[in-house]
Amino acid sequence: MHNAAFFRQILEEKISKLSLNHQPAELYDPISYMLELGGKRLRPALVLMSAEMFGTAFETAIEPALGIEVFHNFTLMHDDIMDKAPLRRGKPTVHQKWNADIAILSGDTMFIKSVQHMMKVNEKHLPDVLSLFCSTAIEVCEGQQLDMNFEQQKNVTIKDYIHMIELKTAVLLACALKTGAIIANATEKDARLVYDFGKMMGIAFQLHDDILDVYADEKKFGKLSGGDILSNKKTFLFLKACELATENQKKDLLKLYSGIETDPDSKISSVKKIFSQLNIQQESEKQMQHYYQQALQHLNDINIDNERKKIIRQFANDLMQREF
Amino acid sequence: MHNAAFFRQILEEKISKLSLNHQPAELYDPISYMLELGGKRLRPALVLMSAEMFGTAFETAIEPALGIEVFHNFTLMHDDIMDKAPLRRGKPTVHQKWNADIAILSGDTMFIKSVQHMMKVNEKHLPDVLSLFCSTAIEVCEGQQLDMNFEQQKNVTIKDYIHMIELKTAVLLACALKTGAIIANATEKDARLVYDFGKMMGIAFQLHDDILDVYADEKKFGKLSGGDILSNKKTFLFLKACELATENQKKDLLKLYSGIETDPDSKISSVKKIFSQLNIQQESEKQMQHYYQQALQHLNDINIDNERKKIIRQFANDLMQREF
Repeated sequence: MHNAAFFRQILEEKISKLSLNHQPAELYDPISYMLELGGKRLRPALVLMSAEMFGTAFETAIEPALGIEVFHNFTLMHDDIMDKAPLRRGKPTVHQKWNADIAILSGDTMFIKSVQHMMKVNEKHLPDVLSLFCSTAIEVCEGQQLDMNFEQQKNVTIKDYIHMIELKTAVLLACALKTGAIIANATEKDARLVYDFGKMMGIAFQLHDDILDVYADEKKFGKLSGGDILSNKKTFLFLKACELATENQKKDLLKLYSGIETDPDSKISSVKKIFSQLNIQQESEKQMQHYYQQALQHLNDINIDNERKKIIRQFANDLMQREF
Repeated sequence: MHNAAFFRQILEEKISKLSLNHQPAELYDPISYMLELGGKRLRPALVLMSAEMFGTAFETAIEPALGIEVFHNFTLMHDDIMDKAPLRRGKPTVHQKWNADIAILSGDTMFIKSVQHMMKVNEKHLPDVLSLFCSTAIEVCEGQQLDMNFEQQKNVTIKDYIHMIELKTAVLLACALKTGAIIANATEKDARLVYDFGKMMGIAFQLHDDILDVYADEKKFGKLSGGDILSNKKTFLFLKACELATENQKKDLLKLYSGIETDPDSKISSVKKIFSQLNIQQESEKQMQHYYQQALQHLNDINIDNERKKIIRQFANDLMQREF
């Protein structure tokens, strides 16, 4: 069994070899750029870990692992256009460095490339792997659309929000794990359990991201602390605060999120003050733990030797402990 | 054997049933809108005709036919953003009616949907059908990128242009025909021949489009006559004119395409005057015929009864005769 660091190294090597000098350069250079911006390689690592956990050599799962990573980066490239994000991992986004047309078309190409990678599995697994991949991809688009809708929508509930992050973030982690399971000929029940583990992990992971965006150390996290507050994003923290707030606190909060306060530092500290009065950090961590524990339960229920689950359990634990 | 009108009717029915009331509406309404704008349904009809020509019931090819039509409409939705096109088939484009973000994300979703349709073939054909579809889709993106590059590029040759339209337009027609052939268990040689027939047809078809854009009757064609001239598009007609022009004519032509002439009618008539001096309509028709004859040769070489080729031959002939 191999650990996350090993898989990450394998993946970095493979990803660096994806970027050949294809023509036209205007189409392919942004793809290389995007893929080489780095990142945790979380999703492809989950494919490999899952395949190994269920008893197959991880090498047989490399191609779909790459497919899921390329797909993830395609969604980032298009999301960055829609979010008008200037930076991604501290570097200019593709639509910023080139332009939006290039980012649209290079993104489209990445999506096709991701399907081509997903296809490189044993023929008997092809229908299952591809069906799962496509239905997941559709859900990710639906999640992104809901996320955009929420910007305009007044009464977003916590339930709406959890549903949105389930689609936008969690199902791809679940898909990654289940893909490894399919390739390793896991039973249908175990494949479903590892999927549910991934989905709950994914929700916990996103809640953790929301918390870190407000409370993480800026240097460690790599992005501006409080970015979600500045962009009036209806995260779990904000929605929970609205739920728990007194009438006056809610009025203050909505006012702060209406764009009336233009000084960033002052806006962040005012919001954080209300969050603090309402114990939002603790409330959010409680909710995150709730999903994390659900995830672990699904992992426990998988019908394989406990020893084989160690690496994935450790990986999940590390993710939940991360400070950036 | 069924004719094009029959297939078109079948396809219209099937396409109208694709648009269910999926949620979120912001994602799915533009997809229905786009698919219901109409069009010739040329590509999916070719899938069905080819399947039938090679001896299989067309019903087995309906899903990949829909896949190719959905894919084609996805490319139109994204191309319209890049081209800043206000109208598509006389109606507002998706990015115009909604916005660019919606057009990006609905387009992405259509693309995934198209893969799902392509997957609905007999399992033994799945790898071949999907490999062909993905490599074709990549080529279409490369063609679109080359098309955008040509806007900035000074020395575009006729060879460059033919290569671009081969990728952007022709290979998808070829792919449609070959998909039908694969489903009908055609021999590898015949599948390649019908592919080459489609590719040559596709080039002839695009050259015909270029000619019609300048010379077709506006009402019949459904778009503004001379649109390519107004947008300084380096079509076959323009490139051929540059090749044949005297130094003075070329200077005049480049000046007209530099944007100096702002009155549309005057610009079109000045360009058409030079085209006429250089016999550009005839030259273009000659080139179109050259590709059309090559296409027919490939069709003739297919090793099946000549009677079975009648419908496709008639369809190709009708396409070449069309006046809009």
